[in-house]
This record gives sequence, structure tokens and C-alpha cells, in this order.
Amino acid sequence: MSATPRNAFYAQSGGVTAVINASACGVIETARKHPDRIGRVYAGRNGIIGALTEDLIDTSFESDTDIAALRHTPAGAFGSCRYKLKGLDKNRAEYERLLEVFRAHDVGYFFYNGGGDSQDTSNKVAEMSRALGYPLTCIGIPKTVDNDLPITDNCPGFGSVAKYVAVSIREAGFDVASMAKTSTKIFVMEVMGRHAGWIAAAGGLASTTPAAAPHLILFPEIRFDEAGFLAQVERCVQAYGYCAIVVSEGLRNAEGKFVAEAGTRDAFGHAQLGGVAPVVAQLIKERLGYKYHWAVADYLQRAARHIASRTDVEQAYALGRAAVDMALAGDNAVMPIIVRLSDEPYRWEIGRALLADVANVERKMPRDFITPDGYGITPACRRYLAPLIAGEDYPPYRDGLPEYVSLKNQAVPRKLTTSFAIN
Amino acid sequence: MSATPRNAFYAQSGGVTAVINASACGVIETARKHPDRIGRVYAGRNGIIGALTEDLIDTSFESDTDIAALRHTPAGAFGSCRYKLKGLDKNRAEYERLLEVFRAHDVGYFFYNGGGDSQDTSNKVAEMSRALGYPLTCIGIPKTVDNDLPITDNCPGFGSVAKYVAVSIREAGFDVASMAKTSTKIFVMEVMGRHAGWIAAAGGLASTTPAAAPHLILFPEIRFDEAGFLAQVERCVQAYGYCAIVVSEGLRNAEGKFVAEAGTRDAFGHAQLGGVAPVVAQLIKERLGYKYHWAVADYLQRAARHIASRTDVEQAYALGRAAVDMALAGDNAVMPIIVRLSDEPYRWEIGRALLADVANVERKMPRDFITPDGYGITPACRRYLAPLIAGEDYPPYRDGLPEYVSLKNQAVPRKLTTSFAIN
Repeated sequence: MSATPRNAFYAQSGGVTAVINASACGVIETARKHPDRIGRVYAGRNGIIGALTEDLIDTSFESDTDIAALRHTPAGAFGSCRYKLKGLDKNRAEYERLLEVFRAHDVGYFFYNGGGDSQDTSNKVAEMSRALGYPLTCIGIPKTVDNDLPITDNCPGFGSVAKYVAVSIREAGFDVASMAKTSTKIFVMEVMGRHAGWIAAAGGLASTTPAAAPHLILFPEIRFDEAGFLAQVERCVQAYGYCAIVVSEGLRNAEGKFVAEAGTRDAFGHAQLGGVAPVVAQLIKERLGYKYHWAVADYLQRAARHIASRTDVEQAYALGRAAVDMALAGDNAVMPIIVRLSDEPYRWEIGRALLADVANVERKMPRDFITPDGYGITPACRRYLAPLIAGEDYPPYRDGLPEYVSLKNQAVPRKLTTSFAIN
Repeated sequence: MSATPRNAFYAQSGGVTAVINASACGVIETARKHPDRIGRVYAGRNGIIGALTEDLIDTSFESDTDIAALRHTPAGAFGSCRYKLKGLDKNRAEYERLLEVFRAHDVGYFFYNGGGDSQDTSNKVAEMSRALGYPLTCIGIPKTVDNDLPITDNCPGFGSVAKYVAVSIREAGFDVASMAKTSTKIFVMEVMGRHAGWIAAAGGLASTTPAAAPHLILFPEIRFDEAGFLAQVERCVQAYGYCAIVVSEGLRNAEGKFVAEAGTRDAFGHAQLGGVAPVVAQLIKERLGYKYHWAVADYLQRAARHIASRTDVEQAYALGRAAVDMALAGDNAVMPIIVRLSDEPYRWEIGRALLADVANVERKMPRDFITPDGYGITPACRRYLAPLIAGEDYPPYRDGLPEYVSLKNQAVPRKLTTSFAIN
């Protein structure tokens, strides 16, 4: 490591979460404690695109108070993007451009806050900097509501979505139970998770007794069996007077097609407007005759900082801090992770994984987390999920609304004369 | 008033809310303080149907702790129903049956917790008991998320939906703003309010600057002007990089038809599966080409006790307490109401209205609460709404989830040999 301070670059990548800014807060607050080692922290405006286009944000113009407020502010304070760098062989120019920008701004630390694709990028940037002899410390910071990164016990962002989903289906369950005698008997809540059922499974935490909502969960891992499902719905209505269902947006039919897309067309023959919840609800209405309501939480679930999991916030912050600590300790091409020490009482610590081991490996939900009938979660799943939604971490409020911070996001003056086209 | 204690009957009516149980809590806790005047508080199982079918719940089996927990438990603890009693001329038998059940159980107090229809019923029950010489004190307790009762400044249940909607669109706005550069530029959130725009208007509270979400509100009071709306969306995307929209489920097109129903058919030619949000989002996609996301909050919004307005909880409780106080003071055929004393600082007190003046009168949102262009709220509207979402009143949590109470709901032994068919 150099004794002369060098600048750091931090970027947010992919879909944002309720706590990705808590990681940013951890990075920046920790960097500010080491002015002898880290100069300025530059953030990529709209993620890695900001680096490619030399559109950097100088976070040193932000007050300590505003940076601290990132901890309780959802979404990506510097902007994120869904831009995936191609392989080195495919588009070497992108990596060279990144390093050109970093060199121009004396960036010695690269912190990339994202999911599996992003950690693949982090790893390639590390390889490229080594190959070109440009000294750069590359540290990934995990983030994804999908909870699909390997090695780490869980991913920051997931715990808060999980809490939102479990709280919401519990509340809606109480509502429907009140009305079921003469009105709505079916409630269907659609949640995220196109490829894995982690988020849908989290809804199951609310069902602490068989009578408590949700009664059924439809996972993307289990092909939709219409007849079997309808029989389950009927059983729940008979037993409990109503049926509350959590359905993953990624539910697929027997042919492997998304149920959300398979069913319906609009008046013009276009694929229907989206949403598996209305399809499932309508199916029940047609076949069993029950009145239904449905909800699609969409972005509300991943932005819901107001009901974030304290565990999630603490871990997101700790991972941001650990990323800087690891960089300063001389680590490279690694990602701090969550290591679970025990379920009950829940204890965790920060560990580390090699980016090469994280990149492009997707973690699936174990089949033994889903009950044999395919509609619920097992005790093992509950044991894993429960600590992740534990604790509340309320943001401050003003006039009845959460006070989230919007940063100045002042641009760093450009130094390069070349531009770079994003394709 | 008699010196011998008589029993009370309490029922919840219509769609439930995050705070209707707080009113129940106010009723029962206050009644328990007057054992010399009020014997047992019976609740109608599933609302007024419980009275008609002599299916009463004896709340005296519930502990003080559980009754206190009603204050932080959403939905209807005794069940509600959408059963509307007909006029006295149409179905006199229903009213006679009610009084027969009340007589059998020595019910001297009738507390009916609901909206305009319910207060019409309360009033008719009062008339009927007078006509038949059965001594019964009838007190209405206001409740409706639609905020459409007259005379009272606002309705319990509305403030909490309003807070949920404002918080949610603020959070989703932060999310979309983060992603807009390369991904989603449009977010459409559908909210309740089939006939009045109060709930949609509440979303506007989050927009404390022109750049802050929501940028546009689509009210049921304003006919949908497709071209004008699309021009507004384009303006917002140009100005802010994205556009966040709150749309009322009651939005109507130029012909006066619900937009949710007008647009689309499924593959089988059925009316589409519901939701105006996807219709509006798809329109923007087709005409302007922007990537969208949409959410339908449905029951989540009215059940969201976790983010209830403290003002709303306090008022709901105070109205329940006031109902009992009024009954004991000798009032009859009245409803306690909220009287606003000042906007800033917000001060309110309990007043009273005659049920005859409340019954079947619907309060509309004033046109001057909507901006001239039809897409936002005016300062007058903000002044009215702001205090109603003020303050938080978090429920207790256990294992990361709110601890809501489920009561024993033990039945009162039947005394009548006759049954009554609900039609």
C-alpha cells in the first residue's frame, strides 16, 4: 500500500434496496477516518456508467450529517444502473476506459456494491489492473434483494424486503379474516424473486400458526399445479374461512412458462399487462367462485426503508465499513461477507470471499426449505430466515413523513478529453 | 338513564381499517370503567350480522391486556361485514329482530362503528327503538378510509391510509430516481378511493418539492385526458429524469367509465383482471416508450398498522371513548366527531353530530383542493391533510413481526329459539 493517500471510487449497481445506502454510509464514514490513506471518495453517477463516462461525484462536498443520513435512506443516493460490463475478451475497451478514468483521478480503491454480475465485473477489473500494472485495490460489497449470492450467509437488502413481505401479509391477513364471512375470502399478494423463492418464503414467517396468513406460498421453484393448488385453497377456506396467498412473480406453469405471461392478452392482443397475482386470483374466482383481492407490491417492497430490518441495516453498514478496512489491510479482489455463527441467539461476523469464487455463481433456495407439498416453508427455512428480519430501525420523521436525504452530488471536474459511448 | 347496569352491543361495519380496533379499544376500556352503568360489552360477530343471528361475542372474557392490544391491531377483531340494512319500510323485520336480540340480552347501548351507510342504520335503529318503546341508546362511531363522512373534520382510518400512501410513494420515488438513467423511468402506484380522491391526494403530501415524487396524481374527480396526461408525463421525464404517478382506482375516462375496466380483456374475453395502474403504465409504454413499473397496494394500504398515523390512532381511540361517554351522559342518536380547532399547530377536539345529519350524506373533496391542471394538490389541500398523517405509533414487535392480538371471541349463549335468515 502507498503511504500517499489515493482516491476511492464507489458505485452502486443493479436494482437498489432499502439498505444499499447504508453500505455507502459505511464506506464513506470509514474512509473519512483514514485521510492519510484515502483521499476523496468519488461515486459513480448512475453506477459504473459514471466511471465509464467520467461522470464522477465528489462525496467530500457532503456533510457528515448527510452522509450519516444515508444509513436511513432507501435506494441509490448516487444512482445505479443495470449496465453489465462484457467479458474481457468481448469488450476490453471498457475495462481500459475504466482504468483510464481511474488513473486520471488517481483512484486507488474500487468499491463495487452489487450482485453477482457486479462482482464478476469487480473481479475482471482487478484482473485487468494487475495485467496493465495499474495499482488498484478492488473490493466487492454484496447487495441484492434476491439473496442469491454464494458463500455469504445472506445478502444485504434481502432482510428488509423479507420483513416488508412478512409484515404486509400478516396485516392483510388480519384484514381479510375480518371480512371473509360476507365478502373477500381470497387475498393474493405478489412478491419479487423471478428466479428464486427467497422473498416468497419470507412471507411464510408471518404464518406462526396454521390458521395465520399466509396459508399458501407459490414458489418459482415449484411448477404450478392448478388442480392441486385449487384443492389447497378450498381446504383453507373451509378450515379458516379465508385463504391468504403469497405468490412469486417467477411462478411457472407445467410447461415452464411464467404464469404472469402465459394467461392473458389485452383487447389488442398484447401480452397482458403483467402481474401473476391477478391471474391466480381470477383463476380462483372462476373455479371456486370466491371473491378476491390482490396486491402487487413491486418497488414498494424493496424501497420500504420505513420497515427495514435492523439486522439488515446493521449488516449493510458493517459490510461497507469492512470493505474499506479490508482495502486498507491490503486485501484485493475480495468481498466481505456475512458469516452466521449461530441461529439462536443469532450471532454473525464479517468474513471474506474471493471475488473469483463469488462471480456468476447463483445460490438457489434449498429444496428442503420448502414443505413436501410445495406450499409452505420448513422449520429449517424459518430458522434461517427469522433472524434476518429481526429488529426495527426506524428513520427519523418530519411532518409525518420519513426524512430521507438527497445529496448534492456535485460533479468532479473532468480531466479527460476523450469521451466514451455507452452501448 | 337506568341505575341498573345494562349491557352494550358494539359492532364493526364495512371495510376495516388500521385503527378501527383502536375505537373498539376506546369503547371497551371506557365501558369497563363504569360497571355501575354498563354490564357486559357484547360484540357482533362479523358485524351487524352477529346481532341479527344472535351470534354475540362476550368481550368480558378478554383480558385488559388483550383489549389494550386492540389499539395497535389492524382490521376488525370481531369481524365486519358489508351487510346493509334496508329501509324501515323495506324490511321492518330486520329492525324488529335486532331489538328482539337486544331485549333478550338486555342490551341498552348500541355502538355502531362504520361509515355513512352504517350511520344510517344506527339512526334507523334509534328511530325503531323509540317507536317500539324499547329503551336503547344508539351512538355511531365514525370509520372509513374514504374520508367521506360529513360534519366530522375527518374519518378515523383515513389518516393511516394517507400516511401509508405518502410514505410508499416517497420511497418508490427514491427507488425509481436511482434507476431512471438506464432503466425504469415510470412508476405508477394505484390507491383506493373509488368515488373520491382523498387517498390519492394524500400521496401528494410526499411531493414537498416539484422534483419529488409523486409528480402526477390522477383523481377520480377529474376525467382522464390521455393526451394531456401523456404531455405531463413527458414533461416530468424531461425535467426530473423520471415520473412517479399516483392513480386512484376510481379514475374515469372521458365517457365516465372506469379506466380500470374500459381498457382490456383477457384471452377469454373477460373484463381484464383489474387494476388501473397497469393500464396507465402500459399506455405510457406504448405512446412514449418508457420502461415502467407499477404497484397495486390494495388491502396493504388500509391494513398497514405498522405505519399508522399517531393522530389517526389517537382520534380513533378518543372517538370510541367519547361514544361511551356520550351514551352515559344521556345522548342518543348522535355520533362523536372530530372538530378541527387549528391547522398549525394542529389542534382538535371531540364534537358531536346528529345521526340524522350524517346518514347517507357523502362528503366530496373540494375542487379547490386539486390544482387547476388537475394533477396535483393545492396548498389548502396540503394544509388540511398534513396533520392527519402526523406522528408515528408503532406496534410492539416480536421476532421481527408486529404482535397483533387475536381475541378469544367467546360466544354468548343463545337465548332465543328463533333463527333469522340473512339475505
